[in-house]
Amino acid sequence: MDMQPENWSGTAVHPVGLVIRQKDPNNLEMPFDQLDGFITPAELFYIRSHFPTPQLDPATYRLAIAGAVRSELRLSYADIRTMPSRTCIATLECAGNGRVFLSPPAPGAQWQLGAVGNAEWTGVPLSVVLERAGLADDVCEIVLEGADRGIPKEEPKPPGPISYVRSIPRTRAIESDVLIAYQMNGRDLTPDHGYPLRAIVPGHYGMASVKWLTSIVATTRSFQGYWQTSDYAYWDNSAGTPIRRPLAEMKLKSQIARPRMYEILQPDRPYTIFGAAWAGGTDVAEIWISLDGGASWVQGDFLDPINRNAWRRWKYDWITPTRPGRYTLLARARGADQRTQPDGHNPNFGSYVIDHPLPIEVFVNAP
Amino acid sequence: MDMQPENWSGTAVHPVGLVIRQKDPNNLEMPFDQLDGFITPAELFYIRSHFPTPQLDPATYRLAIAGAVRSELRLSYADIRTMPSRTCIATLECAGNGRVFLSPPAPGAQWQLGAVGNAEWTGVPLSVVLERAGLADDVCEIVLEGADRGIPKEEPKPPGPISYVRSIPRTRAIESDVLIAYQMNGRDLTPDHGYPLRAIVPGHYGMASVKWLTSIVATTRSFQGYWQTSDYAYWDNSAGTPIRRPLAEMKLKSQIARPRMYEILQPDRPYTIFGAAWAGGTDVAEIWISLDGGASWVQGDFLDPINRNAWRRWKYDWITPTRPGRYTLLARARGADQRTQPDGHNPNFGSYVIDHPLPIEVFVNAP
Repeated sequence: MDMQPENWSGTAVHPVGLVIRQKDPNNLEMPFDQLDGFITPAELFYIRSHFPTPQLDPATYRLAIAGAVRSELRLSYADIRTMPSRTCIATLECAGNGRVFLSPPAPGAQWQLGAVGNAEWTGVPLSVVLERAGLADDVCEIVLEGADRGIPKEEPKPPGPISYVRSIPRTRAIESDVLIAYQMNGRDLTPDHGYPLRAIVPGHYGMASVKWLTSIVATTRSFQGYWQTSDYAYWDNSAGTPIRRPLAEMKLKSQIARPRMYEILQPDRPYTIFGAAWAGGTDVAEIWISLDGGASWVQGDFLDPINRNAWRRWKYDWITPTRPGRYTLLARARGADQRTQPDGHNPNFGSYVIDHPLPIEVFVNAP
Repeated sequence: MDMQPENWSGTAVHPVGLVIRQKDPNNLEMPFDQLDGFITPAELFYIRSHFPTPQLDPATYRLAIAGAVRSELRLSYADIRTMPSRTCIATLECAGNGRVFLSPPAPGAQWQLGAVGNAEWTGVPLSVVLERAGLADDVCEIVLEGADRGIPKEEPKPPGPISYVRSIPRTRAIESDVLIAYQMNGRDLTPDHGYPLRAIVPGHYGMASVKWLTSIVATTRSFQGYWQTSDYAYWDNSAGTPIRRPLAEMKLKSQIARPRMYEILQPDRPYTIFGAAWAGGTDVAEIWISLDGGASWVQGDFLDPINRNAWRRWKYDWITPTRPGRYTLLARARGADQRTQPDGHNPNFGSYVIDHPLPIEVFVNAP
């Protein structure tokens, strides 16, 4: 096979597999230094699962639409596959991506940089299904439920097994880019990515894009489930007493893919620093790079145009230092809203939203 | 630089960096699917540190030899560099390598397969220094102390900061392959690998190869330090009541490097399965591969001859199945002592000695 080396010694470079962060259920990340094209291949796309992967049979599978609707629906997989479809490109990032950089360490999978990917998603707009069911006027949220089920590990634990459930605001749910997706990069979803159907909520952290979608419930009150209040939530301090709020849009963020952690560089040589930047609620407008641990910043160039809710790859053509030693590289994006990434992690987000510049340490050799 | 892609899209393959398992102190592993030559390049060699890396100045550095010896010594870095040297090849494996495969999860860095490497080490045999100091007749252990220092995280914690200290039996310490090493693969040690000097104890788990070596103490009693009794220790159940014993020799083990985790394979095609096997107390004599999750086993071929305390790379020329689906691959070595790797993890070893066959799950596509 073409993935095999020609010989068994030397300096051949091999494709790389996913990094296991947790097993049973599998939580796997892309080695982010493998970033290449605009689209992340399914084989390298991170897998974040809360419970074992449900084995669903498309022949008997049904998607229920219920709650405050005029007519409840039960759709088969074939029903969904024959409805009008739409394709959109969206970057999904796990809200805990970058957690291994937190100090002191935070509980949960110790994601490095690879719990993010950019894919092309194909499916039926959620709005089409909601229109067919007919939302009541006072519906405020759409609750998305997956077939995956178990007892979460983090306190406070629910009294028994629960399904993975998240809600999104009605205003977001009815936008045409929110999908009931069945394809990723032009191929049917794999079991670990939500086969047969999953939600795709572009711009939100991955937790909103519920996999193995089995139930859609229109509700007239804020949904207060485990992953809305206990996990995937933060303390909002803006109004005197702290309020627990669900995470939603991905924060502005940028990451360096290359050089890679502890890469050894030759002095005084051209080296193209390469990475990606994304944001949920705004567009990425500028990328700034620091070659000295944040003391000074230079501007990089984008390789991709603005595509709402998709990342932009960027580069900076560097001449490596002449002086040997250890160097810390950082990247910091600026949004179209003129905001930049923060200097540090906001503790109100707990073990989530690691959106400050993350250091890549490299070594420059003596000439 | 040659590490940069020619263009920014397509399927170029890039060198891969170390995977961060813990930060501050850095605990980094090799993506084991990058296994290639017999020798692991320093850039890919795992880093396992208990405390922040000490910054030692070779000009003022001193190595103390003390305890039950005829004459205590204080050697400079220059003294060591001018003594007779020896080079040996040794595989070092962290005793917790493979921990992410344990179910339920065990505390500690969630190593996958890459906390192991094989390097060429150059330095002064420990025996030369011990002979010069003159061991007392009743010395039973040699205690090796590093300059790294702090408060360990695991209970029972010592009352204050301690140095990293391990002992080895006198019988092992005086063998000529135990080194006070200053070079790895022909270059001076990097700071993270123990610059200026480290111990190398071939055949023992990495914990014995104390980095930043500053003190060598000959003792007439068993050393009962934290990393000898609390951490890096196990329950020996062989004598009625369980006894706490220090880990020592690496157990017989084999790992699959390729295919990689979740690799997608074409059906009915040649594919060379590739990996490595090693052992501390014996030689690796046979390698067996299972292509069906352990139901049956076939024999593989070694690519390296036996080199005591160095790994042997191996391969098996497979024809991938014609039937699409998910397949679990395993490897199991047999030692020259006729023992094979166990079927499962022995709980007496706690979160260490993960020496059972570790599953690599792959997918075979439809034709």
